[in-house]
Parts: sequence; C-alpha cells; structure tokens
Amino acid sequence: MDHEHRPNATELSRETGRVEAFSDGVFAIALTLLILDIKVPRAFSIAVPHELTAALLKEWPSFFGYILSFVFILIGWINHHRLFTHILRVNGTFLLLNGFLLLTFTFQPFPTSLLAEYIGHPGERVAGIIYASVSLLIAIGYQLLWRYAAYNHRLLKRNVNKDMIKQISREFNRSFPIFVLAFILSFISVPASLGLLSLLMLFFAVTGFTAAETGVE
Amino acid sequence: MDHEHRPNATELSRETGRVEAFSDGVFAIALTLLILDIKVPRAFSIAVPHELTAALLKEWPSFFGYILSFVFILIGWINHHRLFTHILRVNGTFLLLNGFLLLTFTFQPFPTSLLAEYIGHPGERVAGIIYASVSLLIAIGYQLLWRYAAYNHRLLKRNVNKDMIKQISREFNRSFPIFVLAFILSFISVPASLGLLSLLMLFFAVTGFTAAETGVE
Amino acid sequence: MDHEHRPNATELSRETGRVEAFSDGVFAIALTLLILDIKVPRAFSIAVPHELTAALLKEWPSFFGYILSFVFILIGWINHHRLFTHILRVNGTFLLLNGFLLLTFTFQPFPTSLLAEYIGHPGERVAGIIYASVSLLIAIGYQLLWRYAAYNHRLLKRNVNKDMIKQISREFNRSFPIFVLAFILSFISVPASLGLLSLLMLFFAVTGFTAAETGVE
Amino acid sequence: MDHEHRPNATELSRETGRVEAFSDGVFAIALTLLILDIKVPRAFSIAVPHELTAALLKEWPSFFGYILSFVFILIGWINHHRLFTHILRVNGTFLLLNGFLLLTFTFQPFPTSLLAEYIGHPGERVAGIIYASVSLLIAIGYQLLWRYAAYNHRLLKRNVNKDMIKQISREFNRSFPIFVLAFILSFISVPASLGLLSLLMLFFAVTGFTAAETGVE
Repeated sequence: MDHEHRPNATELSRETGRVEAFSDGVFAIALTLLILDIKVPRAFSIAVPHELTAALLKEWPSFFGYILSFVFILIGWINHHRLFTHILRVNGTFLLLNGFLLLTFTFQPFPTSLLAEYIGHPGERVAGIIYASVSLLIAIGYQLLWRYAAYNHRLLKRNVNKDMIKQISREFNRSFPIFVLAFILSFISVPASLGLLSLLMLFFAVTGFTAAETGVE
Repeated sequence: MDHEHRPNATELSRETGRVEAFSDGVFAIALTLLILDIKVPRAFSIAVPHELTAALLKEWPSFFGYILSFVFILIGWINHHRLFTHILRVNGTFLLLNGFLLLTFTFQPFPTSLLAEYIGHPGERVAGIIYASVSLLIAIGYQLLWRYAAYNHRLLKRNVNKDMIKQISREFNRSFPIFVLAFILSFISVPASLGLLSLLMLFFAVTGFTAAETGVE
Repeated sequence: MDHEHRPNATELSRETGRVEAFSDGVFAIALTLLILDIKVPRAFSIAVPHELTAALLKEWPSFFGYILSFVFILIGWINHHRLFTHILRVNGTFLLLNGFLLLTFTFQPFPTSLLAEYIGHPGERVAGIIYASVSLLIAIGYQLLWRYAAYNHRLLKRNVNKDMIKQISREFNRSFPIFVLAFILSFISVPASLGLLSLLMLFFAVTGFTAAETGVE
Repeated sequence: MDHEHRPNATELSRETGRVEAFSDGVFAIALTLLILDIKVPRAFSIAVPHELTAALLKEWPSFFGYILSFVFILIGWINHHRLFTHILRVNGTFLLLNGFLLLTFTFQPFPTSLLAEYIGHPGERVAGIIYASVSLLIAIGYQLLWRYAAYNHRLLKRNVNKDMIKQISREFNRSFPIFVLAFILSFISVPASLGLLSLLMLFFAVTGFTAAETGVE
C-alpha cells in the first residue's frame, strides 16, 4: 500500500482495539466454559444425604482445577490487557503470535479436565505433565508476543519509554523460570508441580494485581 | 511509574470500560450457558405423547432453577453495571475483588444444576445449602467490591456525592441480611430458603429495576 | 436523584449502548450454542460408509431445527438492534422487558432440541406445541418492549417521528398474528405449524432484511 | 425514509461497527467452543500410566481437527475483519450474506467433530466430504459477501480505490480454486483433501497474516 493511504493514529488505535476486544471475548468465554467440566453426581446413585456430600468431596480435584484454571485465565487476561495498553499497532506476525496465545488459552479446559479426572489415579503423572506443558506454552506465548512487539520499539506507542519496557520484561522474565521449574517438577511429583503453579497464581493474584495498579496510576 | 506518565481521564475511563466490558461478557455467557443444564428426555423412552408431558413436568426443578438463576445473574449484571457507573478508575485490589465476583457467577450453573438434580431426592438438603452458600458468597462479593471502591471515595468519580454513595450502600445492606437468612434457612428447610431467594429476586426485578431507573434519570 | 445530576445525552447514549451490547452478546452466544445440539453418531455403530450417510440423513430434524432456530435468533437480533437505534434511554421497566426477551431467546435451544428429538416420534405434538409457544412468547416480548418504549414517545430519541414509529409498529403487528396462527396450528398439525414459522422466517430473511436496508438508508 | 433522515457518516459507521462486533462475538465463541469436542478418557478405564498416553495418542484426530478448525476460524475472523475495514455501510442483502457466513462458521464444530470420530473408521470418506463441503461453503460465502459489497463500489468507503479492491479480490480468487480442489479430492482421498486444506491454512497463517500487515501499514 502506498504512502497516500498510510492509516492515521485513530485508525491504528481502532485496529488494535478490535484485536484486543476479540481476544477479550475469547478469554471471557474460556473462563466461563470451565464450569462445564464439573459434573453433577446423578441423583439415583445417592441414597442418603451425606452420600452427596461424600460424592462432592471426592470431586475435589474438579473444584481445585476449576479455581486454578479460572485464576490462570483471569491473570492471563490481565497480563494480555496490560501488554496491549502499550501497543500502538498490530501486524501479521503479531496476529500470528496472538493467535498462538489464544489457542493455548482455549485449549486450557482440556488439561484442567484431564487433571480433575486423573488426580489420584494411574494416569496422574501424564495428566500433570500435560497441564504443566500447556502452562509453559502459555508463558512462552507471552514472551514471544511481548518480545516481538517491544523489539526495537516495533509496535509500541511513542510514549512508552525504556523504563516501562524494562519493567514489563522483568516481570515476564521473573515468572518464566517458575513455569519451567513446574514443568520439570511434573515429571518427578505432580502435587509439587501443581503446588508451585498454585503459589505462582496466588503471588500473581496479589502482587501481579498490585503491579496492575501501579501500571495504571 | 513516575508522575509524567500519570494517565489522564480518558485513559482511566478506557481502562475502567475494558474491565466492565470483560465482566459484561462473562455475565452474558454465564446467563446463556444455563440452558445447557436442561436435558431433553430421550425419544425412545416415550411411548405415548402424554408421557413426554409427564416427563417434562417431572423436570420442573430444572425449569425453576433455570429461571431463578437467570434472574439472579441478570440482576447481578444490572447491579454490577450500576456500581461501575460510579467508578472512575480500577486498581489491583479492585480487580481481585471483581475477579472473585466473576468466579462466583461463573460457578453459579453448578449449584443450579445440583439443585435441579436433587430437589425431592435424598441429597436435597446438601444441594440447597450449597445453592444458598453460593448466593451468599455473591452478596459478600458485592459488599466487598462496593465498600472497597467507596471507602474514602477511593475509586469513585468526583461527581459522586455522599447521598449517592449512601443510597447504594443502603440498597446493598438492605438485601444482605436476606441472603444470610436464606443461608440459615437452607439448613432447616430448603423450600423455605429457595422461596425466600425467589421472593428477593422478584422484589429486585420490580423495585431493583425501578431503582435502576431512578439511578439513570 | 436531584436535577443537578440529570445525565446528559452522552451518558444516556452510553447507558443504552451498554444494554444493547450486553443483549448482543447474549444473542451471539445463543446463536453459537445451537450447534451443541447436533450429535455425532458414534463410530463403533457404523460398519460401512453409507451407514454414516444414512445415520446423518435420519438426523435431518436436528439440521432443520438448527437452521430454523439460527435464522430465528439472527432475525431476532436484527429486530432488537433496529428497535434500539430509536431508543434514547432505558429505565427499569424497559430492562425488565428486555430481560424477558433475552430469557426467551436463551431458552430457545431447549425447544429446538426437543423438536429435533421428537419429530416422527410419539412426543411430536407436545414438542411442536412447546416450540410454537416459545416463538409466540418471543413475539409477545417484542410487542411489549416496543410498545412500552414508543408509548407517548417515552424512551425514544427526539428525531424519531410518528411515521417511523408507525412503520415499525406496523411491521411488528403484521407478523404477530402469524405467530398466533402457528401456535394454534401446532395443536392440529406440527408440520403445518413449523412450515408456517419457516415461511415467516424466509419472508423476514428477504423482506425483513430489505426493510433493515430501508431503515438505514 | 425521506431524505431529511438520511444518516450521516457517524451513524453509518456505528451501524457497520455493530454488525462487525456481533460477528466478532460469533467468531470468538465458535473458536472457544471447539475444545468441547475433545473428550477426556474416563479414569476407570486406565490401569497403568502409559495407557493414558496411548489413549490420548489414539485421539490424535481430535487434536488435529481442533487445531485445523481453530486456525480456520481465526483466519476466517481476520479475513472478515479486513473486509469490514473497507465497508462504509450495510444493507439487507449484505446482512443476509453475512448471516450465511456466520451460519457456516457456527456449523464448523460439527464437521470437525465428525472428522475426529471417523478418521480411520468406515465413515471416513463421508466425514471428509462433509468437512471439505463446509470449507467450500465458507469460501463461497466470502466470495458472495465481498463481490456484493464491492460491485460498483456499492457498500465501500470512498477512499477505497480500484487497486485495493483488485488486491482483495485477487487474494480471495487465488484461494478459491484450492477449496474446490480439496472438495473434489475428498471423494478420492480424505488425507489428501485434509492435507491440502492444512497447507492452505499454513499458507494463510504466514502470508495471509503478512498481507494483513501490508493491509494496515
């Protein structure tokens, strides 16, 4: 396209806004679909009230998986959103990387469901490794998306200065080794791997959210 | 972040708008997913027409649960939305509290489904207590979100005056004891607990909606 | 609320826009969830290729129901959207009526599924009556929503003149008796009732869409 | 409607934006719902860990179908979005054609699911033909939508010049014969047909995204 049709700032912003709104939609749906994995025990199999309590307690991996993945996706959305506040424009490669990230997030209900089914069963190790792998893929997705956008100030807004770029890079880099560690741990001990990911989510939920605050104020 | 990059009113409003739009999406999806819990009786089990009528009538708890939870989520959305009309900016803690609220709403299809399965069966008491508990958690979520935002005018718009704050607080405080009562009642009589929640929703649907009108005009 | 805080045109428009965006989300989700009702025949039950063809052809009521309800919801969205282009502001009663309309639309997948299961089976009559009833409820919902908003120019924009109001009322009134007729017919002949509704949707898809064109140009 | 009420540019843009936002929602939901087709093997059927690995590997058609359809819908969204950046206004016929496109996209989970169930089973041919047919229908949908909008500059923005129109037409025309070929191939060899569609998606993911870049910059 020749220079006469170079889009202005409003058009770029509208374009970027669309990609963000589409991604927001995918995050919101992935978040809400998680509940479909929690199955209600059938009434005919329950003879006395406390049997239902017992049946639900036995399903604790489903509830644990639900909350872990909910927080995971919610924090994923917040990070995605923070990243986008610094983006001026999108291009083909960025869309491709963003698509990869959305693929891993929409896939998340499957390892969650697998985990809920296999904790305490023979397939636990396999399910735990898959869960940690998908988590790691998501972390890699963020690294790629951010590094591509920030490299040489490629897609960033003008008013984003070096300190802001460094701060975000530092935050992404700080958590990345933990995803790698959780992945390695999943081969040795699934509870340890999940415990580490849970702690990381808890940490994000507190300080990550606080960072979001700093980022805005 | 230093003072040179303090965001202006437009940026704050855009930020707050994104959080609201994301929450709106989650509410809309949770609302629409409720229908997946109503199961169609299989054709091969029905020999004569009126057997289908009978089978559907026997499923009345599903329909009742569907309508109750639909109204619950719809009113939840309206309240969430009203609250946000007074919010100027968001911060980390607010996002955390808002996330907790979204978690309880996306979880809502599960107790609804549990209720539909167990009304009239041995597990009714357990299902009723869980439904009332989740309802109470939602009410607590609103209290926390609003109190945090309104405390010392922390996140509110400048033009929100003390009378407006008091009015909203009064409305939230007025309904809160009823959620507590419904929770206590669920240990004694599930129909009484559900009846109370249904009445509250009916009351909201009429006066709550009217209050929404007052709030806008 | 006193007169000092009477919202200005921008605030009213933002408010109305939110309600419309939320409703749009519900329509889009209801539309997309319909596909979940079409079941894939299990592979182990198919020994030779043409058995799959036969199995899929036998499922024609599912495909018919899918397309009918898809067009139904899509046209519902277009009508909802056209109605909203004339709305200046919303109030409590309008939100209540809009909520009723959304309830009927999110419920739509259930009668569709029921119809797909029972066409050609003993429960056909019952399923057909329920489908026609929900369709009629939707038509009633539009009548209420529009009449309430248009009565004495209650919630309409200033530039909406009497001719425009009359035109929309005429269109809603023109199709209403057909929904009533389809409802009555469902007690006599389900194919006739569904045929009439299909014709009406076809008519809408052609002239209704054309009217939308006129409405915009 | 008489000339006094001819909508201005802002109104036309708002109108077009709504149709695009609604379509975006449908794309986002269709994308996220795909995961529901991947079934978790039941825990009781797995006695030793590697049985789960084997069970998951046996499900490769589900994962292949998931990724293929995800990329298909994502690219579909990008193309839809690019097309809309040139649209000034919508009319009834355009809404009808857009509705047809959305219908084919929301239907996509069904052939994907069918394919996952029947690859390597007697029904493979039938499933493959249906998948290629729906893909072809989508390609036809884009042709119709774009040709209708671009014919005589009917619905396009003023600043869209002949070169830009030709470029988009050329891109749509370039891929169309491949969809036809994949359709024909599906009658001869399903793997060849799917391989061709996969290559096309890969090609789009790389050059199509790059074209999107060119389109914006």
